[in-house]
Amino acid sequence: MSSSFGTLFKICTFGESHCKAVGVVIDGCPPGMPLTEADIQPQLSRRRPGQSALSTDRQEADQVSILSGTENGKTLGTPIALQVANKDQRPKDYGNMRDIPRPSHADYTYQMKYGIRASSGGGRSSARETIGSVAAGSVAERVLTDKYNIEIVAWVSSVGDIDAREINPANLTRETVDQTIIRCPDSDAAAKMEQLVAELKEAGDSVGGVIGCIIKGVPPGLGEPTFEKLEAKLAQAMLAIPATKGFEVGSGFAGTRLKGSQHNDPFIKKGDRLGTVTNNSGGIQGGISNGESITLRIGFKPPATISLPQETVDFAGDSATLEAKGRHDPCVVSRAVPIVESMAALVVLDMLLRQESRNSVKY
Amino acid sequence: MSSSFGTLFKICTFGESHCKAVGVVIDGCPPGMPLTEADIQPQLSRRRPGQSALSTDRQEADQVSILSGTENGKTLGTPIALQVANKDQRPKDYGNMRDIPRPSHADYTYQMKYGIRASSGGGRSSARETIGSVAAGSVAERVLTDKYNIEIVAWVSSVGDIDAREINPANLTRETVDQTIIRCPDSDAAAKMEQLVAELKEAGDSVGGVIGCIIKGVPPGLGEPTFEKLEAKLAQAMLAIPATKGFEVGSGFAGTRLKGSQHNDPFIKKGDRLGTVTNNSGGIQGGISNGESITLRIGFKPPATISLPQETVDFAGDSATLEAKGRHDPCVVSRAVPIVESMAALVVLDMLLRQESRNSVKY
Amino acid sequence: MSSSFGTLFKICTFGESHCKAVGVVIDGCPPGMPLTEADIQPQLSRRRPGQSALSTDRQEADQVSILSGTENGKTLGTPIALQVANKDQRPKDYGNMRDIPRPSHADYTYQMKYGIRASSGGGRSSARETIGSVAAGSVAERVLTDKYNIEIVAWVSSVGDIDAREINPANLTRETVDQTIIRCPDSDAAAKMEQLVAELKEAGDSVGGVIGCIIKGVPPGLGEPTFEKLEAKLAQAMLAIPATKGFEVGSGFAGTRLKGSQHNDPFIKKGDRLGTVTNNSGGIQGGISNGESITLRIGFKPPATISLPQETVDFAGDSATLEAKGRHDPCVVSRAVPIVESMAALVVLDMLLRQESRNSVKY
Amino acid sequence: MSSSFGTLFKICTFGESHCKAVGVVIDGCPPGMPLTEADIQPQLSRRRPGQSALSTDRQEADQVSILSGTENGKTLGTPIALQVANKDQRPKDYGNMRDIPRPSHADYTYQMKYGIRASSGGGRSSARETIGSVAAGSVAERVLTDKYNIEIVAWVSSVGDIDAREINPANLTRETVDQTIIRCPDSDAAAKMEQLVAELKEAGDSVGGVIGCIIKGVPPGLGEPTFEKLEAKLAQAMLAIPATKGFEVGSGFAGTRLKGSQHNDPFIKKGDRLGTVTNNSGGIQGGISNGESITLRIGFKPPATISLPQETVDFAGDSATLEAKGRHDPCVVSRAVPIVESMAALVVLDMLLRQESRNSVKY
Repeated sequence: MSSSFGTLFKICTFGESHCKAVGVVIDGCPPGMPLTEADIQPQLSRRRPGQSALSTDRQEADQVSILSGTENGKTLGTPIALQVANKDQRPKDYGNMRDIPRPSHADYTYQMKYGIRASSGGGRSSARETIGSVAAGSVAERVLTDKYNIEIVAWVSSVGDIDAREINPANLTRETVDQTIIRCPDSDAAAKMEQLVAELKEAGDSVGGVIGCIIKGVPPGLGEPTFEKLEAKLAQAMLAIPATKGFEVGSGFAGTRLKGSQHNDPFIKKGDRLGTVTNNSGGIQGGISNGESITLRIGFKPPATISLPQETVDFAGDSATLEAKGRHDPCVVSRAVPIVESMAALVVLDMLLRQESRNSVKY
Repeated sequence: MSSSFGTLFKICTFGESHCKAVGVVIDGCPPGMPLTEADIQPQLSRRRPGQSALSTDRQEADQVSILSGTENGKTLGTPIALQVANKDQRPKDYGNMRDIPRPSHADYTYQMKYGIRASSGGGRSSARETIGSVAAGSVAERVLTDKYNIEIVAWVSSVGDIDAREINPANLTRETVDQTIIRCPDSDAAAKMEQLVAELKEAGDSVGGVIGCIIKGVPPGLGEPTFEKLEAKLAQAMLAIPATKGFEVGSGFAGTRLKGSQHNDPFIKKGDRLGTVTNNSGGIQGGISNGESITLRIGFKPPATISLPQETVDFAGDSATLEAKGRHDPCVVSRAVPIVESMAALVVLDMLLRQESRNSVKY
Repeated sequence: MSSSFGTLFKICTFGESHCKAVGVVIDGCPPGMPLTEADIQPQLSRRRPGQSALSTDRQEADQVSILSGTENGKTLGTPIALQVANKDQRPKDYGNMRDIPRPSHADYTYQMKYGIRASSGGGRSSARETIGSVAAGSVAERVLTDKYNIEIVAWVSSVGDIDAREINPANLTRETVDQTIIRCPDSDAAAKMEQLVAELKEAGDSVGGVIGCIIKGVPPGLGEPTFEKLEAKLAQAMLAIPATKGFEVGSGFAGTRLKGSQHNDPFIKKGDRLGTVTNNSGGIQGGISNGESITLRIGFKPPATISLPQETVDFAGDSATLEAKGRHDPCVVSRAVPIVESMAALVVLDMLLRQESRNSVKY
Repeated sequence: MSSSFGTLFKICTFGESHCKAVGVVIDGCPPGMPLTEADIQPQLSRRRPGQSALSTDRQEADQVSILSGTENGKTLGTPIALQVANKDQRPKDYGNMRDIPRPSHADYTYQMKYGIRASSGGGRSSARETIGSVAAGSVAERVLTDKYNIEIVAWVSSVGDIDAREINPANLTRETVDQTIIRCPDSDAAAKMEQLVAELKEAGDSVGGVIGCIIKGVPPGLGEPTFEKLEAKLAQAMLAIPATKGFEVGSGFAGTRLKGSQHNDPFIKKGDRLGTVTNNSGGIQGGISNGESITLRIGFKPPATISLPQETVDFAGDSATLEAKGRHDPCVVSRAVPIVESMAALVVLDMLLRQESRNSVKY
């Protein structure tokens, strides 16, 4: 396990699908900052299961509680422990999944790694684990918003074969993203996506999708080459989200097909800094932010747990048919939108705090 | 700067394009291991500039020297310092690039981050920085080969719009990869790629490409959820390579278009462990290796430094035409093949050493 | 804040004197290990306030609760979150201490560092912060006991000017240590110490003392030179305990007065390893355990909070007389005994897990 | 091995007694800072062997070379690699020490830990390993001096049973310390110390001693509770120096004998901050600097390598008489003075950079 992330804004998450509570300890939050549960709840609520007919039927209120690190609604600079009780602690309804590792799920690998695994749900590999990151991300975003005017917005850009038309993220907000249940700003595509997800839910199947993310207002200078280049830490952060299979920054894989003369972003003057005419760089050059918007794409595979029968083998290697019980998401991307935003916030704030130190010692 | 990577097999790299030397300190290498410069040189030689007419004309022998950590050709368990002298230390030939930040290069961002930058070449953002990682990766590979029979092979799968036909990496070796200068195992595609690169070099332009990578023989159980999932650390490692814009594991972005019933990898019995029929998971499930081959794809943008004139602005924001001098690669992917392999080796060995500790305390 | 400690057995603590809860997240505990609250409670109970007339009158049951990381009484290998609710959450009874920083306490430095501080008690500088470390130390000790037969015993060796006679720690156990309230195995000295503490409590004053600690059964080979030498990490661990002012290993400062010919520990054969005739080295040579018992001494200053009036200044710099209210320990050493043992356990287990990895890859 | 130290000002050292070179990579040095070899050499020269008749006869010029990270005499913000060639690379003159582990030296423990060790000298446990720390400490001190007016001075306060009279460190400088060869500011005691060391050198024996250290000008607010309290990191740093056995801050062990009413440091107004009348706290309260001078004492054991015959056993466990050859210091404290200063500098600068980040985000 390595449940810690960050250098100066450092988090440590905990919790499985069916233990008493999931949560996070945040170490390194700026002191004196106004913070109550109301600052943290909105993203948790956007992430929680049971929001709509499209997601799992598991109902969790996911109410967060601040255990430490604040007094009179202000942060003390000390570790902030955040906790969400698991209302649904009783393992149940998992049928023959005890003996048969779910294909493409983590049952087999957890068993091989630890020699033991949670008896039901996904244990630590459950998407409930992301609650800690989302709660911490909300705290990070307070600082980004209050002090740096940085805004992070993610959205669903494709579900299965249904692609949203080109999104202009410049004016996108979370409110506009939330206008459709699936969180795709192209309402035509959104309708098709929602219909597809509903059909797959009915059929006991699942589907993947892609999330786009923009980070606006990042000052130039963030990122710590060599191994903690801004895109490298963003890639780690995003691939740490369950079910992710791909990551792109700026032009991504499409950019590999271009010539340098097409791909290069010429500089122009933008106020008191240089900007770029195009943004194939996705706001990052040489591992360091250049002041343009940071643009990312993250690919999510179809959820592994489906209720369609699957021909596979059990732990003993004997042939078996798995018919998964339990309540599962047919598509995770709409609920993953706040997770992506939170992971981005954790990376950006940590890099900001590191660069602030550098900026403080001027020669 | 954050030039360290790894937890138990830990490296710290140093060096710019035109300083006295570039290199790396490796901390945590198993003791008693046979190690001489001859173990490290081959990958450095595959990475070095001037190997063929396709790459930069900069000639560097890149001879590695072991400064510490071995005696009589065996590792002592102490830090291994490796150094490659920069033969070509004199900044020169960079024309008006002093005043004009190269579009899509790191000149502007380094200046914004540090308030200073190397006067020529890429400084620390130069691809010469990867020498340390490649040298360290070679040491890591010794352990992977000697003790775990793990094999890592990378190859060029596309250059610009030229895609190799489907590669079956099962029997791919570095020798077969090196049969073409461009390091693409599809010789027809390779010929076209080489011609394209030659044309672009002549034209003063550049082009991107994609590298595939397979890691064979990884035992189940590697990877440290949550934030150091195996794919998350691989993503960080690969996005830390200069010029990378995208990362995929297993089915990648293509997998996002599938249904769960299509994408799931059913289990079958393979000897004394479970294996999978298909490998959309790319050898990793829930952040942990499952015993199948790990498959990656990494996208590289076209090199930013081109000699075609570019309309841009100088640091003062005034319009300027940049005509870059110097010797630069029109396409980095063939030289990046050993870099990708080395980064993979660093991640896998570190995860192995961490899991070995876990395996040692059995309940 | 830096509330994390350890590399493979890694903890992150949280909590202040008057927030909802204090606790710890443990990451890296061996999986499959039997663990319930009953394994953790004993050391917490030895640490809790209100155990005897000698300590603070603050009463806290300090009942620990496992929030995550176990199922059916066994560890899953996932993060173990442990929590102790603060029964006594209401700040009160702190009189003019709001405006006057307590001399030699952390009020002034926390205010200078964070620009804010907890309104009462010690906030994060309170000894309640050590609950997390003690809880985590108990988990670490399970592994040390179960798998390595390592035993850690600490005791009070002096209080003020009252020194216990030479203690032979070879046969010392926690039970024998606990035979006196003050936890000094020399019962004559213990009686005098207890009387002194009672007098000082009555007088509103406080006194310091020294704790000895022995770690028995540590195998040779633990410790990670250069900067994580075994004694260096033990020193960090002990000086991280509130109120500590000094640390010695083996012969300590007394050893500085000796000649090498007197101080050197000659080797002899002990079973299948070498041992030493004397143990001035305190079980550590060159930063690495040698198989002999590790011996430490830790000095604690007199608690800063006393109820005798103190002439000082307030935060504004104006003269003031502080008459501290609240319930405070006149001497911390007896309650610090389990804290010292816990910090030792955290260091030793982390070093064991790191060395186990090294032992797994044999050339 | 764990040869890294620091969070934002991070170093990684390398090198054994008889390899090609020893040195350090510094990551996180402020950019734009003037830095040449001449800034680093003085402390290395104070540390080098062969300075006087009192130390080892091994002669090493210890000339430092900057390999990377600077251009035109200014730091680039990139890793600074520093190297000192080992003039004396040939193992020799170590007689039967190959088969007989030197009592109280690291021969036995390195062999047990790594299963291999350097054939002569101390390998990585040699005091030559400290060259990296001293070189890095000199770079850190540049920042401390230039930007914070912080001054660090260490001196010898005792050798064997010879104690310097009470030193007032307020006006102590390195120049005054260096007025005696032994580096004790009490010239009467210094003469006796030097005579004692000369006698012991002649006799083939050795002796321990104590170093005092003062850090002047540290602003309030440095130190990262809980586990990286300022005194905790200083303790780790000092106990990482070879041959150290004890550490004290402020009143140290003597303070454990006092009552709180005697030990507490009352506050007074000092300019625009609060200061304290006395300084039993040693400049640190609650793990955080309070603005007063930080005062430390570090105890060094007598060097283990003596030429007097020692009755011991060989690696096989058979009785043996060791008569050590080679050139060794009869007393390390005078050469350890710059090492103590350097370790202090590394800790203080790292804490400063971390606090600067916190100070940059004000609510």
